[in-house]
Amino acid sequence: MTETDISPRVRPMLPRGFADRDASDIAAAEAMMAKIREVYALYGFEAIETPFVEYTEALGKFLPDQDRPNEGVFSFKDDEEWLSLRYDLTAPLARYVAENYDRLPKPYRSYRAGWVFRNEKPGPGRFRQFMQFDADTVGAASPAADAEICMMAADCLEALGIARGDYVIKVNNRKVLDGVMEAIGLGGDENAARRLTVLRAIDKLDRLGPDSVFALLGTGRRDESGDFTRGAGLSEAQADNVMRFFGFSAKVISGPLIKYVSYPFEQADTESNEAAVRWLRERVELGHVGKAGADELEEMAKLFDAVGYADRIRIDPSVVRGLEYYTGPVFEAELTFEVKDEDGRPVRFGSVGGGGRYDGLVARFREEPVPATGFSIGVSRLLAALRAIKSPIVAASETPGPVVVLALDRDPDSMANYQRLVASLRRAGIAAELYLGDGKMNAQLKYADRRKSRVAVIQGSNERNAPGGPQVTIRDLKLGAELAKTTKDRADYLELRQRAQVSAPEAELVARVREVLARP
Amino acid sequence: MTETDISPRVRPMLPRGFADRDASDIAAAEAMMAKIREVYALYGFEAIETPFVEYTEALGKFLPDQDRPNEGVFSFKDDEEWLSLRYDLTAPLARYVAENYDRLPKPYRSYRAGWVFRNEKPGPGRFRQFMQFDADTVGAASPAADAEICMMAADCLEALGIARGDYVIKVNNRKVLDGVMEAIGLGGDENAARRLTVLRAIDKLDRLGPDSVFALLGTGRRDESGDFTRGAGLSEAQADNVMRFFGFSAKVISGPLIKYVSYPFEQADTESNEAAVRWLRERVELGHVGKAGADELEEMAKLFDAVGYADRIRIDPSVVRGLEYYTGPVFEAELTFEVKDEDGRPVRFGSVGGGGRYDGLVARFREEPVPATGFSIGVSRLLAALRAIKSPIVAASETPGPVVVLALDRDPDSMANYQRLVASLRRAGIAAELYLGDGKMNAQLKYADRRKSRVAVIQGSNERNAPGGPQVTIRDLKLGAELAKTTKDRADYLELRQRAQVSAPEAELVARVREVLARP
Repeated sequence: MTETDISPRVRPMLPRGFADRDASDIAAAEAMMAKIREVYALYGFEAIETPFVEYTEALGKFLPDQDRPNEGVFSFKDDEEWLSLRYDLTAPLARYVAENYDRLPKPYRSYRAGWVFRNEKPGPGRFRQFMQFDADTVGAASPAADAEICMMAADCLEALGIARGDYVIKVNNRKVLDGVMEAIGLGGDENAARRLTVLRAIDKLDRLGPDSVFALLGTGRRDESGDFTRGAGLSEAQADNVMRFFGFSAKVISGPLIKYVSYPFEQADTESNEAAVRWLRERVELGHVGKAGADELEEMAKLFDAVGYADRIRIDPSVVRGLEYYTGPVFEAELTFEVKDEDGRPVRFGSVGGGGRYDGLVARFREEPVPATGFSIGVSRLLAALRAIKSPIVAASETPGPVVVLALDRDPDSMANYQRLVASLRRAGIAAELYLGDGKMNAQLKYADRRKSRVAVIQGSNERNAPGGPQVTIRDLKLGAELAKTTKDRADYLELRQRAQVSAPEAELVARVREVLARP
Repeated sequence: MTETDISPRVRPMLPRGFADRDASDIAAAEAMMAKIREVYALYGFEAIETPFVEYTEALGKFLPDQDRPNEGVFSFKDDEEWLSLRYDLTAPLARYVAENYDRLPKPYRSYRAGWVFRNEKPGPGRFRQFMQFDADTVGAASPAADAEICMMAADCLEALGIARGDYVIKVNNRKVLDGVMEAIGLGGDENAARRLTVLRAIDKLDRLGPDSVFALLGTGRRDESGDFTRGAGLSEAQADNVMRFFGFSAKVISGPLIKYVSYPFEQADTESNEAAVRWLRERVELGHVGKAGADELEEMAKLFDAVGYADRIRIDPSVVRGLEYYTGPVFEAELTFEVKDEDGRPVRFGSVGGGGRYDGLVARFREEPVPATGFSIGVSRLLAALRAIKSPIVAASETPGPVVVLALDRDPDSMANYQRLVASLRRAGIAAELYLGDGKMNAQLKYADRRKSRVAVIQGSNERNAPGGPQVTIRDLKLGAELAKTTKDRADYLELRQRAQVSAPEAELVARVREVLARP
């Protein structure tokens, strides 16, 4: 170890899971969020923001899949009480509505974008600070409120440049799944562990296919290597009910051999929302609670049909949102188009947002229950998708660098004169700056390149003291760069060179710079 | 204590020092910050944002006036290392620049708005989360960089609607004050306590006047009640040097009686910046360091004169910024107009921002020193000022509520039809919503009033089933409210009533709503 390795200097680095945002990230995110706000305002939602810190108790514990219980949240003790950084925008909204209940119009529609924090083990692409954009309706028990939010999410994606057919809003209802569990005798707190085993089996549908999952719901399954996984212990009838709920139809091929085929929920005809609900009612044992959920799904499906959203909002029983506070409809916004990953393989973007009804969350603070429903967008994920499809919304957000006035003479009078030139450009609404570093002319031009500037303004002492009055040189940096790559034999070389750098009286500075900036 | 007092419910409240922001606060702040960004971009500054959390060590300890040492910052332990919420935007920028030093263009001009956190005892108007808007130039040692930032601050205030003459950017230089202290033998770490006593005496200039402060700099002072305050123990010559630095000229009236008169630094002639520097040079013992500071002030004054800012940026030796990391020029943006306080007394808004040169802050991370200078705006304070003067920038940010379509019939088909009406308004770019609560017609109209809506759309079953095709009623809620206060004897009463509520075929909905929204 050398001495420089034990330098007393502080290392300039961020803790893992946190990231800086550069100008293009910020501009793209801002452009995207401005468009989202526009859509939400069209729906009558109003902006409201809560602070980053709340009483830990007010936030509650609603984080899904906690590896480290009570450690998903950043907390600190304040004199007597624990404070926490918010981990989502829903819990703080519940506190806000409860605190201001009497003076708020009800139903209360609101939206907010904001950073949230998770004290989790950071991993690749997994951040401990990330931004969500939420919209919520509090005080409306009707499924029409849930349907409205789904339609708003669809409008939002289209306004952002995602074509119809490239996304789908999938809708399910927590009550339906609860009802199925109840119907197969897995209701109640005492069966929570077995319900989890069932859901874990269902989670493997994509990977293992329906027949293996059916085995995992029952006695168990032996894989190709010969290893045996114990099943959830459901009877064949119970397991079949679960399979039917998730859209699979059993066909007895011969004797005890059962083969499952998928019911085509996802086919793009406008009938399929009603067909999905009909399937649930006719083919699945739903129990009392499940039937109420199916009624709500039917009401929503009717609205989607009537307002013309049936081709992009689909009833889909496979949607299971992890958060435990959902009490009714749940939804998920999925992008269905494919992009290439780093290795050139096609991948889907998948979920960019989701939400659902959480009637119990505000009630934690109040004597009476308060119905509520909401939708949350993962800002950076959606932004990545918009960039992948080159949406004009985020593409238009890149701006060129400022005009750079070179500082060739550094005496106070020259510097003051340069500042005067810069100020005259700014007064004309042109972004401009004086080079304030130590570099010589070449370094200054390189700086202008790095800033992606289009124009450099040059004035040496000869030009300032020119006999006919002070002159300036205006250089088109883009044309200059092209010229440097061009052969001198080109017929228009001289003309190009003339355009790339012109000399003009100081009084014409603004007009000449404007000319260059107007070039393509 | 009754049983309801020990309710198990969570209390919906925020920790002290934190606040929610409503739609009008957010819109006004956004409008203000958009304007600031516009000015900063004109100066060639680019947006950059850092996260809220940094290594505690990377932030360093630069908080002024800590009552509770090490407790001004919200911190939490992450496995092995301490993390903190940022307490300003300067320390994180220093980390960012050091981390990305080689790839950044230099000088590096950047800006950012963001929330910062102070773990202090909250008080009235004193928040633990507040927003700053910073601009910084890193890598430029020249006072021209400091001057540029002062001019940008001035442009910013004017762009926000604060008239010339209603604000002043005051400029001083930390080296000059250091030089004065050195010249009177109070340089070095060992004299820190005595320097503080001197500065505390100076702080009382406004309250006690120059003669009492002169006494406090020397042996001490007996106040009107007879209490004696011990002084800083300076000799008369030393104390007089300090007084001269702060712009006071001694006049020996008779014998030992000294009277101080203020030198008119603040007079609004364009000479006074140069006059202020001349005063320092000629009348104050500045020492070696102080003379270097005066040189920098002179260079800045020259630029202000040349570019035409001398009437709003003033050299003023009374500016003492608290932060210990400043190493050269320091500046303060002050609003000089008066507003009435709650008791009707005239008060000045005072400081809305400040900053200075901090050449050592980036150097904490690197082997070589890195010059840097910056300016920070207190967002909520400036916003309060803009609201007080009714600046059009923030006044234009209030928007009316959405068109409310009343839900008179709640059967699924009617609800679907209402949603269709709402959707047609939205497609025409008109903010609109369906009432989704439980209220009857009157409650629904009250809701629309609370939302500050201009238009309510009404359709009962009679209208929907009208013989000539479905009809809608469009109510102008503003005109309706005026009508309710109007006597029926008015000549134009019937005409008014006709305008306040019209019936029209459903197909004309958008056109008729537009008509009403276009009314003043």
